[in-house]
Formats: sequence, C-alpha cells, structure tokens
Amino acid sequence: MWQELRESTAEANRRLAEWRLAPLTWGNVSGISPDRGVIAIKPSGVPYEALTADKIVLVDAAGGVVEGNLRPSSDTPTHLELYRAFPSAGGICHTHSRFATVFAQLRRGLPCYGTTHADHFAGEVPVTRPLTPDEVNREYEAATGRVIVECFQRLGLDPAAVPGALAAGHGPFVWGKSPLQAVENALALEEIAATAWAMAACGGPLPPLEDYVLKKHFERKHGPAAYYGQSPGAT
Amino acid sequence: MWQELRESTAEANRRLAEWRLAPLTWGNVSGISPDRGVIAIKPSGVPYEALTADKIVLVDAAGGVVEGNLRPSSDTPTHLELYRAFPSAGGICHTHSRFATVFAQLRRGLPCYGTTHADHFAGEVPVTRPLTPDEVNREYEAATGRVIVECFQRLGLDPAAVPGALAAGHGPFVWGKSPLQAVENALALEEIAATAWAMAACGGPLPPLEDYVLKKHFERKHGPAAYYGQSPGAT
Amino acid sequence: MWQELRESTAEANRRLAEWRLAPLTWGNVSGISPDRGVIAIKPSGVPYEALTADKIVLVDAAGGVVEGNLRPSSDTPTHLELYRAFPSAGGICHTHSRFATVFAQLRRGLPCYGTTHADHFAGEVPVTRPLTPDEVNREYEAATGRVIVECFQRLGLDPAAVPGALAAGHGPFVWGKSPLQAVENALALEEIAATAWAMAACGGPLPPLEDYVLKKHFERKHGPAAYYGQSPGAT
Amino acid sequence: MWQELRESTAEANRRLAEWRLAPLTWGNVSGISPDRGVIAIKPSGVPYEALTADKIVLVDAAGGVVEGNLRPSSDTPTHLELYRAFPSAGGICHTHSRFATVFAQLRRGLPCYGTTHADHFAGEVPVTRPLTPDEVNREYEAATGRVIVECFQRLGLDPAAVPGALAAGHGPFVWGKSPLQAVENALALEEIAATAWAMAACGGPLPPLEDYVLKKHFERKHGPAAYYGQSPGAT
Repeated sequence: MWQELRESTAEANRRLAEWRLAPLTWGNVSGISPDRGVIAIKPSGVPYEALTADKIVLVDAAGGVVEGNLRPSSDTPTHLELYRAFPSAGGICHTHSRFATVFAQLRRGLPCYGTTHADHFAGEVPVTRPLTPDEVNREYEAATGRVIVECFQRLGLDPAAVPGALAAGHGPFVWGKSPLQAVENALALEEIAATAWAMAACGGPLPPLEDYVLKKHFERKHGPAAYYGQSPGAT
Repeated sequence: MWQELRESTAEANRRLAEWRLAPLTWGNVSGISPDRGVIAIKPSGVPYEALTADKIVLVDAAGGVVEGNLRPSSDTPTHLELYRAFPSAGGICHTHSRFATVFAQLRRGLPCYGTTHADHFAGEVPVTRPLTPDEVNREYEAATGRVIVECFQRLGLDPAAVPGALAAGHGPFVWGKSPLQAVENALALEEIAATAWAMAACGGPLPPLEDYVLKKHFERKHGPAAYYGQSPGAT
Repeated sequence: MWQELRESTAEANRRLAEWRLAPLTWGNVSGISPDRGVIAIKPSGVPYEALTADKIVLVDAAGGVVEGNLRPSSDTPTHLELYRAFPSAGGICHTHSRFATVFAQLRRGLPCYGTTHADHFAGEVPVTRPLTPDEVNREYEAATGRVIVECFQRLGLDPAAVPGALAAGHGPFVWGKSPLQAVENALALEEIAATAWAMAACGGPLPPLEDYVLKKHFERKHGPAAYYGQSPGAT
Repeated sequence: MWQELRESTAEANRRLAEWRLAPLTWGNVSGISPDRGVIAIKPSGVPYEALTADKIVLVDAAGGVVEGNLRPSSDTPTHLELYRAFPSAGGICHTHSRFATVFAQLRRGLPCYGTTHADHFAGEVPVTRPLTPDEVNREYEAATGRVIVECFQRLGLDPAAVPGALAAGHGPFVWGKSPLQAVENALALEEIAATAWAMAACGGPLPPLEDYVLKKHFERKHGPAAYYGQSPGAT
C-alpha cells in the first residue's frame, strides 16, 4: 500500500550518500503519504548503501510506528513538527552538509547573492534562534522543529518559497514536494552556502542579488508561468 | 544530417557532470553547424547521464525548433545572441561552477595571475554589468547574452582570445571552437577562479602575471606559431 | 586465534583510503585484543589497497613482534603508550587528514561549535604541547603518545568522552571502542575541523555550542540513555 | 631496451590524473635512464587515460627524439635542464595542482609547518625569481629550468633533500629517485600547500615546525638510518 512512498524515501536517502551530503549516517530523509496520515523515514543509524525500501520505517502523525522492524530516525519528531506546520512539504531532508553547517554554526542566515540561490530559494534562508535549556532537556527533537516553524512565522516566510532553514549550532533542514526534491534542495543549499562562504572568506563587499532578478529566477522554475524543464505545466 | 553536431553536443553536455562543473541540471552546452544555420542544444531540465544525441534539440537562429521532441534549454536565447556576435564561437557552455560563480557573484573580473590562466584566456575574464529591471522583465535570457557582447565591445576584447565572461550575479558563459572546447575552457575557468579566490582568501598582495609571460603562454597553445599538442599546425 | 582482530584492523585501515583520510600511506590503524595482550597494527609503508588481514602485524605490549613478516608501523610506540593509559580504547587511528592537521599545525585545540562535534567528542579536542629536543631525539614515537596522555591528565579529560587529540605540528590521533570506530571518529574529527576552519576563515565571532546542547547530543549517542541507532542498549 | 623506463614513465603520468594533480593535460612526468643518456617523457597534449608505454617519447640530453612518433611535451627543455643540474633526480614531474599553484602565483615559498612537509621536503620549498622578457622570448622552457637551478644554488639547497620548487607565476616542478616518486612528491607538495594555505586563510600566527622535529621526520624516512617502510636498507 505504501510501497511507492517507501521506494522514493529509500532512494532519496541513498542520494544523501551519493551526493556526499551526509558522511557516515549524519542525515535522514522522510516522505509523507498524500493523505498526510503516514510518514516514511530512515531507520536510525543504518548506512545509506544498505537502505532498501523494506528497511524504511512508517510512522503516524504522533510518531507511533505503523510498519517496520527498525527504530525510526531519532530526528523523527522534528520531521513531524514540520509536516504539521508546512502542508506544502511532501518530503523533508536533514543533513550536516559542510557549508550549510558552517552558516548554522555561525548562526547567520544565508543571503541571496546569485541566481543559483534564486532558482531554489526565494530569498534568504533563515537561521533559527537557539533552543533554551528547557527545550533541549524536555523534547529536544520536537523543539528543533518548533523553532523552525516559529522562525518562519516571525519572518512571515512562505515555506513553499523558502524550502529550508538552518537550525542554529546544528545544521540544515530542507523540504520539497517529494523526498527527492527535498534532497535536491539540500544539495542546492549546500552549493549556495559554499559559494556565499567563499565570498565572505575573500573579504570585500558582498553584493546582494537584485530583487527583480531573484523573482525572475525563482518564477522561471517555480512560478505559475514557469518555463524551465519539460513538465507539462511549464509554458 | 546533423548527427555529428548532435553527438558532439551530447558528449560535451555529459562532460559537465563528469567534470563536476554542473550539479543537478545547472548547466548547458550548445554547438553550431559549420554554416551557422542550426544550433544544437541541451533540452531543459534533463539529467546529463540520460543525455544521448537523440535528445539534443536543434533550433534555428531565431530559436525556432528545427528538430527534437523536447523543449530546448531555457538559456537558448543567451546562446543565440553570443553566436550572432561571436563568429569564432563553435560551441558555448554555461555553468554555475563554484568558484567562477563566486567571482560572478562578487561582480569582479578574474585577473590573470598565472600561466594556467594564460594558457586559455589572453587576459582578464570580464564581468558584465547588472541587467536593468526592464531587461530582466522583457527578454531576460537574450539580454543576458547582449550584456556579454556589450561588455566585450566596451573593453575592446577579442572573443577568440578571451573565450568567456562572468554574468554578474549569475555565473560563467564560456565558448570555444567546438562544444567540447567550450567545456574545456569552462573547466579551465573554474580552476583559475579557484586559484585566484584562494589567493585573495589568504590576504596579501596579488601579483599579476607579467604581460610577456601571458602572451608567451597563450601563443604557445593558440597563436599562429603554437607548439603545444600534436596538431599538424603546430611547429 | 587473532583472526578477527586482524580482519577488523585490516578493514579499518582500508577505510582510511576509501574515506580519503590518508593519501599515500600517511596513516595507520591498530586494534587491541580483549585481554589487551596483543596489538594488531598496519605494516609500515604498505599501500591500503593491498592491506589484507594476513599482512597485519601483531605485537605485544612492549612492541615485540608476535606474528607477521612485515615491520609494524613506525608509529607503533605511540599506539602502545595510548593503549597503556587509555583502557577504554579498543582501536587507535592516526592520520594526516587535511583540516585536523591544519589545527595541529596552528597548535590550536578544536572548540565545539556544533552538534556534529558534540555527537562524537564531548568538548574541545585538545592540542598537545610541542616535544622537547630530548624527547624527539630519544624516543620520538613513544614521546608523541606520552604528551597526549599528559595533555589529558593536565586538562582532566576522559578519553572515552573526548576520543582524540591533535599532536602539535603533526596531526590527529583518534581512538574508539574498535578499530572501525576509531576511523569513524577520525572522519568526524576531519569534518568538524573543516567546518571550524571555514568559520574562522570567513571572520567574525565564532559562537560556541551551548553546554546543554553539547551534553544532550553526546548523550543521545553515547550516554547510558542513548537513543540513537539500532543497538539493544539504546532506549 | 628502454621498455621499463617507458612503462614506469607512462604509469607515473597516469597517476597525475588518478590523483587529480592535473586536469585536462596540464602536467607531465619524465624519467631518465640509469646512464642518464635517454629521457622518457609524456607526449604533448595527449590525455592521461590514453597514455600507454608505446606513446612515451624518448629524447636525448639535447632534446632530440630518439624514439617515438609523437612530439614530446613542450616542457621537455625544462626537464633537461633539471636532469643536467640535479644528478640525484631519476624522475621529474610538472603539474598545475591547485594549492601549489596558489603559492607559485603568490610568489611565496612554502615554509615547513608540520611533519607531513618534513616527511618529504627537508625545509622550505622555494619559489623562483620571475623570468626576464629576454628569457621568455628566447628559450622560455629551458630558462624555466635554469631559474630553478639558480634558485637552488643561491639558497645552497640540496635537490635530494628538497625535491621540488615553485616556478613563479606558473606552478610546481618536483622530482624524485624515479618517475613515480616524483609524482608522490608532487602529491605531498599539493597536500602541504593546501594545509599551509588553509593556515594562512584563517589568520593568526603561523608557527614553524621546530628544526629538530623537521630533521627527525625527514631522516626517519630518508636518512641513512631511515626506519620507515619495508625496504631492506631501513634499520
């Protein structure tokens, strides 16, 4: 019944390793069923190469295991919070990819300096506030999701237009319409973080991308009049 | 009839992925027929590994599809402007490769600091001016090509001697005698951008390459008295 | 009798090359038998790809060869000192991995800036004092181990909580419960060193990870109430 | 008759690509016969993967082709100058590897900051003076070799102890007892250049390695009492 969801989630998780976004087992991808009742997620601590569809764990919205013999990712409560608040998210990806993590550890948002950024994120990728001791000690992983949601609410951001955030002192959480698109956005985030870092590392002024170019590029790929790619919806 | 052009264009596009110049589908290569009537170009949004010659789209100088079932790259109008203005270009390549993009985003030209640069580009690789809102909103991709041409005219540059430019806030466009040479020049541009960036990142004076060494190296490979490689024209 | 120890030590050494932690033969991994009487270690100067279990050398606690036709790693006395002082170490790994070496050469400890660090090291990874001329000239390799032990004693560090150190002007020594875990910790150290270096390279304040997050992350993976992974001990 | 020399030279050239020291065809390796009468060298502009022993060109000490249908590397006269002046060199390697080139372009020698450096080079790797216009215009490649020799004479360096130099504004030339050792030293040079660059890029004091450690490490591998590796000469 959820075989397709398992398959796409397993494939997206394997991409984390293929695209070098997650050394060892430092990352996880989940997907949600169309009715948003079931979440498929990576089992905790299992290497990506061994990750076949039958190893993917299915949980319900409360985190209870629906199917699967393995324990789900320890970050599952973070994913659940994000799915609850962001109905446009069909897949979620967490990594510790190098340069996105640099910005998360610097506790700086990632400003838009170029069209690579604008092709995937319609503006700055925000960084969350730090968690309080109480949040860490009580429901650490759920709280990690909640501060991302809080951050989007405070800044008035549309999670479909800015499909990712940097958890302060931790790393990126990124989403998309599907598990695979979430990983593609995580790859894009890593690349734009690397570029923005390199700009900062060689000093001098860091010119932002003009707003009208940002808008043009995002809409070229994602707006109602998108004309990138081969999909029928594009003009 | 255009099978050879399709083949060489497909191969050059696949090199973008093999040489890690374009993650996902962030780059495209085109080639032009000897009579300059037909341009072969990557279809939009198609992964490189799947890119066989039969998937390459053929368009005419006005951008109309001559042959092919897929939509051509959304950057096609940029390529057309460059072919029109630069008759020495037999192939054109666009990427978002990391360090060339850093210079494009910093809106800095890439000065010649060494012989690796001089082996491929006979002087600074220029950066364009930003596009105006009107240019972005009306014919964005064609305007991207036109500001490159304008930049070469303003600086009095020979596109055969400096086969590439940095589109401000965007990334590199690079050309060559053939689609494959365009990609080789894109690889060279990425490497010299990485080196120049690393020089800037560790501070201190950045000594330019002496003019007479620059000239010697470019002509060793490209001048009428070239003596690099195995080609019969070389002495 | 020690076939399993040989096998796991050989596999862990091959990982050094697979994970690009050691170019040429610049690294070595050892393992110790459960009774701590026999140490299995890489032979000196042998390439990783050729490293099968039968090439692993077995030595006793005094460094005498117990089994094997090849000469053990020239760093063997360093390993012996560490096993003697750190009874929780079941495997030890030495590399010259790039960014860990940068910190070792800068003679700076590696502070904890994020959860990737906290997942593997419960606080700053320390750097040793330099060796004296006498230490270098008399028992260089043993002295290298002794200054690491001295460093842990001076700082009151628990080698099970901080499983690694930076030998000043040299590179990292890292340990774990097994040879493979030692290499995993060496990979983690390289990654957190790369991230910390990138933070320093782009200037500005370097915020430390909050103590309560550090503790939470380390205990999530390693404490008595660990809940990461599939091991039965985790809750 | 020179089949072994051809084979080892071909293999060493292929390593340039395998170890990512030379993109495209930006590097070459040569070897010299035991009687120093014949030099085997890469043909100009031929890709590494296609480089079999039969494609290697044999030249005499004056650069005349002894055997081979292809034109030798355009850098052949540089190699010849170095073989003439440095009788301990059995193989020579030239690359444009990224971080060694950064130092060459910065026109800075590479100081010894750690034991990785000391394991291969017994002190700073020097940078040459720039060539004069006359040197460039008359015998560019031979002059490139001569300024390296001049640099070693001026500084009183032993080419067997410091087996490499940085040609100002150009890139590294590295040698060794054999073609393969030359490439291994080129890999070591690239790695220590990357490390030294990273130290400079994150600011602060750059502590040199203590002289007595430098000496110890070089002699551990190369001195008359070397005890690294499996070679019979080691104690």
